[in-house]
Amino acid sequence: MNFASDNAYGVLPEVLSALAQAAQGAALPYGDDDVTRALALRFNAVFEREIAMFPVMTGTAANALALATLVPPHGAILCHQDSHIVVHECGAPEFFTHGARLHTIAGADGKLEPGALEAVLKQWPWGDVHGVQPFAVSLSQPTELGTIYSREDISAIAALAHRHGLKLHVDGARFGNAVAALGRTPAEASWKCGVDVLSFGASKGGALAAEAVLFFDPADARDFAFRRKKAGHLASKMRLVSAQLAAFMDKDLWLHKAARANALAARLGEGLKARGVTITAPVQTNMVFAELPREIAARLRAGGAQFFDRTRASREDHVVARLVTSFATPEEDVERFLSLIV
Amino acid sequence: MNFASDNAYGVLPEVLSALAQAAQGAALPYGDDDVTRALALRFNAVFEREIAMFPVMTGTAANALALATLVPPHGAILCHQDSHIVVHECGAPEFFTHGARLHTIAGADGKLEPGALEAVLKQWPWGDVHGVQPFAVSLSQPTELGTIYSREDISAIAALAHRHGLKLHVDGARFGNAVAALGRTPAEASWKCGVDVLSFGASKGGALAAEAVLFFDPADARDFAFRRKKAGHLASKMRLVSAQLAAFMDKDLWLHKAARANALAARLGEGLKARGVTITAPVQTNMVFAELPREIAARLRAGGAQFFDRTRASREDHVVARLVTSFATPEEDVERFLSLIV
Amino acid sequence: MNFASDNAYGVLPEVLSALAQAAQGAALPYGDDDVTRALALRFNAVFEREIAMFPVMTGTAANALALATLVPPHGAILCHQDSHIVVHECGAPEFFTHGARLHTIAGADGKLEPGALEAVLKQWPWGDVHGVQPFAVSLSQPTELGTIYSREDISAIAALAHRHGLKLHVDGARFGNAVAALGRTPAEASWKCGVDVLSFGASKGGALAAEAVLFFDPADARDFAFRRKKAGHLASKMRLVSAQLAAFMDKDLWLHKAARANALAARLGEGLKARGVTITAPVQTNMVFAELPREIAARLRAGGAQFFDRTRASREDHVVARLVTSFATPEEDVERFLSLIV
Amino acid sequence: MNFASDNAYGVLPEVLSALAQAAQGAALPYGDDDVTRALALRFNAVFEREIAMFPVMTGTAANALALATLVPPHGAILCHQDSHIVVHECGAPEFFTHGARLHTIAGADGKLEPGALEAVLKQWPWGDVHGVQPFAVSLSQPTELGTIYSREDISAIAALAHRHGLKLHVDGARFGNAVAALGRTPAEASWKCGVDVLSFGASKGGALAAEAVLFFDPADARDFAFRRKKAGHLASKMRLVSAQLAAFMDKDLWLHKAARANALAARLGEGLKARGVTITAPVQTNMVFAELPREIAARLRAGGAQFFDRTRASREDHVVARLVTSFATPEEDVERFLSLIV
Repeated sequence: MNFASDNAYGVLPEVLSALAQAAQGAALPYGDDDVTRALALRFNAVFEREIAMFPVMTGTAANALALATLVPPHGAILCHQDSHIVVHECGAPEFFTHGARLHTIAGADGKLEPGALEAVLKQWPWGDVHGVQPFAVSLSQPTELGTIYSREDISAIAALAHRHGLKLHVDGARFGNAVAALGRTPAEASWKCGVDVLSFGASKGGALAAEAVLFFDPADARDFAFRRKKAGHLASKMRLVSAQLAAFMDKDLWLHKAARANALAARLGEGLKARGVTITAPVQTNMVFAELPREIAARLRAGGAQFFDRTRASREDHVVARLVTSFATPEEDVERFLSLIV
Repeated sequence: MNFASDNAYGVLPEVLSALAQAAQGAALPYGDDDVTRALALRFNAVFEREIAMFPVMTGTAANALALATLVPPHGAILCHQDSHIVVHECGAPEFFTHGARLHTIAGADGKLEPGALEAVLKQWPWGDVHGVQPFAVSLSQPTELGTIYSREDISAIAALAHRHGLKLHVDGARFGNAVAALGRTPAEASWKCGVDVLSFGASKGGALAAEAVLFFDPADARDFAFRRKKAGHLASKMRLVSAQLAAFMDKDLWLHKAARANALAARLGEGLKARGVTITAPVQTNMVFAELPREIAARLRAGGAQFFDRTRASREDHVVARLVTSFATPEEDVERFLSLIV
Repeated sequence: MNFASDNAYGVLPEVLSALAQAAQGAALPYGDDDVTRALALRFNAVFEREIAMFPVMTGTAANALALATLVPPHGAILCHQDSHIVVHECGAPEFFTHGARLHTIAGADGKLEPGALEAVLKQWPWGDVHGVQPFAVSLSQPTELGTIYSREDISAIAALAHRHGLKLHVDGARFGNAVAALGRTPAEASWKCGVDVLSFGASKGGALAAEAVLFFDPADARDFAFRRKKAGHLASKMRLVSAQLAAFMDKDLWLHKAARANALAARLGEGLKARGVTITAPVQTNMVFAELPREIAARLRAGGAQFFDRTRASREDHVVARLVTSFATPEEDVERFLSLIV
Repeated sequence: MNFASDNAYGVLPEVLSALAQAAQGAALPYGDDDVTRALALRFNAVFEREIAMFPVMTGTAANALALATLVPPHGAILCHQDSHIVVHECGAPEFFTHGARLHTIAGADGKLEPGALEAVLKQWPWGDVHGVQPFAVSLSQPTELGTIYSREDISAIAALAHRHGLKLHVDGARFGNAVAALGRTPAEASWKCGVDVLSFGASKGGALAAEAVLFFDPADARDFAFRRKKAGHLASKMRLVSAQLAAFMDKDLWLHKAARANALAARLGEGLKARGVTITAPVQTNMVFAELPREIAARLRAGGAQFFDRTRASREDHVVARLVTSFATPEEDVERFLSLIV
């Protein structure tokens, strides 16, 4: 019963098959191959416009390279204080941007609120050489709490960003879960509401190690290709990364699997609530945050459940368990987990 | 007929099988898994000592992270002027070290000569804050020309480095080819002749995307784990990287496959010489550098052969073709290639 | 009537004389001179211990170089959210540390509170490669609001820092003003209450362009000399920087001048309060923060007063004026300023 | 008898007077003052066009900030192998550019030869993400050997650079010595022969600590102002730096003093030749490189002469002494030095 993370699970069978097939024969390395070329066209089709697409192998690389392309060393990135780029990437954005700053903003449910963003933008010492200057807003869709921004939220944030000359980056490590939950097309969930650059995640959704950075305006990609190589993130056998992404997107596999994971989380959340457990964030994608008595948490673990705690529970003798479902979480694990509660 | 590079070929069947198997079920991410733990023990066994081992997914990452761990920003890395870290990594060592310098040294057959190294070390303004200070020597084994250092060569270089307080790093993207050619154990070919840190390559040898950085003295690894994460090179599904390396090393697969590639290159080199072609560097591993008349190069390409030129041929109307054989190059391709020469 | 900043004023006559004298004749550059050697001994005497002392020419350089020596790229610096290193140095600490993070903490009167610091330290994910790791606490003495930490405050912060293996850095751009206000010796105000590294400021106190970084444990200075040179902060005619610092410290000139500036600020603060003006931070050194009706602020400016506003006044039609006194502010300017209020 | 360096001497009396005068009263800091504004106009007048001018306090800062503005992290700077930025700045260009590379080229008399530059440019793997990409050529005028480029040399280099989209930077730490030797106007010696950016030095010529970065096309300055602040090189009491530069340029003081130093070096060189000493580089500005028997070098030092050796003399028992004259070197020192030879 692994609810620790969606990256605890392995690889979709469709991705493995595609890998085995793409691994046959020889092709030029570093992306000069047919699989990668076809993938670029696929992304154009899925997102309904011509985009600049760059496969990489980790989510941290996707985010940090995207941000470094948008933000100079004297720049700042405005983002939620609990976002992945702040809390879980060991300062990769600062490394790749050569010392730009993450300016963090608080917000309920893990979300950046347009009003809070506006207040920050309003007070900024624009043009003052003594202060770093904002060049991008970065948000996660879904957030670290599994919550999602509505299209209106994103449009409002994008409008604010653009009015001040900033770009909007989205960390979409679990983008499929958000798109599935929103019931919108990928285009509607991204550039049509103002997103400029998307870290499109596949690893958490079922690939081995594959993400794609998407610049909806190819001009924004500028020197990305050099940055990727200089950072050691240009895969030599690129076609094997591209093949993962292609299989992931084929016949909307990513969205079907994301919907499945979302449904399992919803089932888990409902079951917990029915058992009197406090759920601390709206269950909107594939994560459930449950405030559990320490005793029950211990019993669940004794029963084979794996999950991470967050220490900041509202009650002293409780923990907040983060429960993540995935493309491969067995349905029966959800039932077993719930049966251990009572 | 792809002789462009060994990374033009796909993946060893054994590696694919291991991947499919490791992809089953769930395990904690980021290396906290049994496959990775077993891999560390395997490396200890193969290299006959306890080492600090870190899997990454590209050779550039392996080299740059290793060097950044050894060399501070005001440091210098002494290396051959044609080495991969100088010519083919877009300045990754400078990025990861935060601005250290590659101090390049010329040398025949792609090799750093102990005498040339000694001359540089002797004239260095040691301790002068106006000059960068050497902290490491880096060499490639085999070199970019496919040539190999003898154990005596490496011992001499290591002795010089250590006498001046420098560490010796080896870029072993094709380390298996060197070990197979030397007919020595991995330990004899590395720390027993003074190597401190090895970028152990598997991608070129038949993995999908897997390398390992090996610190023979674990104390040298210092903050490597943080550097790897901060650079976006910590794979979330680490067990799938480790599984590739484990399969690669199982039953000396890496050495058998390297020996095969070396033998094909030897055959190719002999065949070319027999046809009157000038071979510009000793054929010692899996690369052949052949000075071909432009007309013949064109004919080979028309016949389906893929390879890269180096422009600096000694004769105006010739090119130097770099021909690389691999774990998967069909034997008949060598014959076909040769048959197109005459 | 310039109350904009203490760096708006020129140079103490004693410093100018020392410069003219030191400028005679020739001496070896880059600090290999008698003036600099004597200065090092002087600092040892003033601070009552052997220290590693490095002159530089700007406060930002002093802070950023000191912090970069203590904190690796994957590190974090804990500091007040309004501190100079956060707000007024354009991200210099991030540049010099190669991407470490300033982790900001709120606190009344511009001061870091031991309790708030403890809470942050307690919750930190120590040793987790996904999170940056604290290596230093940095505080300003006096703060950006002109307030001062008591020796007990600093001792408490130092104890917390040291218990977690962190170093304590103090930005002392106006250190003289704090020492004068505390009525303690420089030693008592620094290493005797746990300070590890001090950016000792002289420019704001009356030098032309001179600061000194003081490592109270010389072992902490590590590669500072190389960092200073690599950052372009090693003055060639070093003796002329050292001469400024020597004159500044001669016969406690720095403390006498700081006491004078403090007294002027006290007089200004009292006068404002007597005229019904709200003072928004305790006046403890050479700064007064006065919440003025916009109309009065305009009248003061029309009358020749220069000062900067802070926009966040508590009342809509007010501004918070920052009024800084200096070693050279004419006494009558204080009286004239006050006379314009009513 | 100090011939160690021109920065061993102090400050021109005219500069000291200007400092004392500018130090009176108060003015806004960071360059928002009348002295700095007037200086900008003065530079426009001296160089006969509107330029973007930025004062800094060290030559290393001037060079590194200028280059970082022109060259991205994946870029390369083509320069002579013995240039100051390569040998004497501890890798500052690599730090400020965030990891760009100095690609060094050999050349007689310390000079970059157009032919050698062209050969490098011709073979470069343009656009290949595996290789760093040239963005600038940097040369020193005069060179580290005191030799000078003719206007034709510079024009040829500039034409090559511009044809490949590169900018031409000139390290002019001793620019006055070159202009005086060329007998041309500052404009003729810089942008009129294709120079894009000039590090204009004053410290070596007689200022305390003052240099200016000049962008002849202001558009090239881009984010220089932010870079200067982020690197800690924005002087708070900027008017005191500007005042040095203004005095230095007033009534062509810089050129008169440079001519004087050049004349002393010529006298010294002639005197040495007359005494049978081998001069190893043409004496064109204020440096003489003299190959002296070790015995004579020792005798000179015993007699009070200070100078640095270069170890690479052509004869075993000789050293090459670098002898530098300055704005303040006493004439009699030249005579005394010569008198000690025989």
